[in-house]
Amino acid sequence: MKSFKELVASFAEVFNVSHFPKEPAGLYEPADYFLTIGGKRIRPVMCLMGNELFGEIVPDAFHVATAIELFHNFTLVHDDIMDKASLRRGLPTVHTKYDENTAILSGDVMMVVAYSYLNKINVSYLSKILGLFNRTAREVCEGQQLDVDFERRNSVSLPDYIRMIELKTSVLLAASLRMGAILGGASEGNQNELYEFGRNLGIAFQVQDDYLDAFGDPEKFGKDVGGDIRQNKKTFLMLHALEVANTQQKNELLSLMEENPADKVERVLQIFRDCDVDGWAKSLKQQYLDKSMKHLEDIAVVSSRKKPLRELADFLIQREH
Amino acid sequence: MKSFKELVASFAEVFNVSHFPKEPAGLYEPADYFLTIGGKRIRPVMCLMGNELFGEIVPDAFHVATAIELFHNFTLVHDDIMDKASLRRGLPTVHTKYDENTAILSGDVMMVVAYSYLNKINVSYLSKILGLFNRTAREVCEGQQLDVDFERRNSVSLPDYIRMIELKTSVLLAASLRMGAILGGASEGNQNELYEFGRNLGIAFQVQDDYLDAFGDPEKFGKDVGGDIRQNKKTFLMLHALEVANTQQKNELLSLMEENPADKVERVLQIFRDCDVDGWAKSLKQQYLDKSMKHLEDIAVVSSRKKPLRELADFLIQREH
Repeated sequence: MKSFKELVASFAEVFNVSHFPKEPAGLYEPADYFLTIGGKRIRPVMCLMGNELFGEIVPDAFHVATAIELFHNFTLVHDDIMDKASLRRGLPTVHTKYDENTAILSGDVMMVVAYSYLNKINVSYLSKILGLFNRTAREVCEGQQLDVDFERRNSVSLPDYIRMIELKTSVLLAASLRMGAILGGASEGNQNELYEFGRNLGIAFQVQDDYLDAFGDPEKFGKDVGGDIRQNKKTFLMLHALEVANTQQKNELLSLMEENPADKVERVLQIFRDCDVDGWAKSLKQQYLDKSMKHLEDIAVVSSRKKPLRELADFLIQREH
Repeated sequence: MKSFKELVASFAEVFNVSHFPKEPAGLYEPADYFLTIGGKRIRPVMCLMGNELFGEIVPDAFHVATAIELFHNFTLVHDDIMDKASLRRGLPTVHTKYDENTAILSGDVMMVVAYSYLNKINVSYLSKILGLFNRTAREVCEGQQLDVDFERRNSVSLPDYIRMIELKTSVLLAASLRMGAILGGASEGNQNELYEFGRNLGIAFQVQDDYLDAFGDPEKFGKDVGGDIRQNKKTFLMLHALEVANTQQKNELLSLMEENPADKVERVLQIFRDCDVDGWAKSLKQQYLDKSMKHLEDIAVVSSRKKPLRELADFLIQREH
């Protein structure tokens, strides 16, 4: 069995080639460019791990992992246009380096090529994998739409927000594991447990991401702390704060969001602390992590095979004790 | 056997339902809207015809036809953004009625749903159909890229232009026929002939479209004649004119394109006539139509089964005796 790190290296070896023809360069060069700016390749590695939990990694798992990573990158290219994001991982996004039309079309073709990789697998698995891939791809689009919708709404309930995160982020993590499990010959029951492991882990990860954006150590976090607050993003923390704050705190939050004073981040954080939003977020993250680990335990394979998935959870989530 | 018209009606019966869930409405309503503004449904009907050429229409042909039409509409939604087209068939395009982000994401989900329809077919055909679908989808993206590239270039050769048209338009027509033929159990040889019939017919159709935009009867053509000339579009006619015109005519064409005088359309048309561009275009169309019909003849089925495909060619192309 391979460790998480070894799987990252194995996948990189397969994935770090060009997935496109040379011409027309205006279409394929931007797609190649975007893939070379990196990313942690979490999803494809999860697919390999899902396979290895139940048996030796089959060559098809690399095809599916590649399809997943291409699909994920397609969503990023299009999301960056929608979010008007000019940088990703410190480098220009496709629509910034080239233009919007290029980003639309190069994104489209990345998605088509993702489906071409799916079609390389043994036909006995094809319909099942394709079905899960399609359902997940649709859900990811729905999640992105809900994200856009929520940014325009005045209030969003916590369950609605969790549902959005689930669709936008968690289902692809969960489906990546499950696709691997299908190729590894897992039973339906084990596939479900693994999917739920991934789904809950994804939510825990997002809670942590929101937490670190507000309370993280700028050195360790690697990005600007307070960015979500400055942009008035509806995060787990803000939604909870607006729910539990007293009238005075709530009014202050709302006026800070409207007026954007220079000390906005500090003042919002102070209200967050006064409402124990930080403690609440830690505990919410822990709840989802616990659920996640419970599903991992309930998978009927010998415990030692689950080690890489525990490593994955450790890598994604800084656990509390 | 069903006539072309009957197949259009059969497909409409299957296709004119909603292909999407209700929620999130911001994602799916624009997709539904775009599908209801119509279109001739040529491609899905070609898929049904490809099937019926070799045997009774199987239910899977309707799934594939639906996938093809959804894919085609996805490309239109994204192309309209890229072309900044505000109307299609006299109605607002998706990015005009809603906004660009909506058009990107609703287009994306239409494509995913197209793949979901493909996955409904009998698994014994799935890999073959999916392979052809993926290849064609990639080619359509390449064609759109070449179209964008050519608009920016000063000169484009006729073979390059034909290759662009082939990718952007013809291959999807050809592949639609071939997918039907695969489901109808056609031999590889017959599939190839049918594909070539569609590919050449598509080029003939585009030559005619360019011709009608310049020389068509406004009453019959149904759209503004001279639009391509006003927009300096590189059409079959303009590319040929720039090749065969004498120095004086060529300079006049170039300055007309640069200066856009009020009488631009008439003056360009006069040069076209002086260079016999109209006669040349009619003969080019006829050449591709002849090639197309030759491939139809070479399909090894009884001649009477080919009647609907001849009707299709008549419908698409106003033949010149």
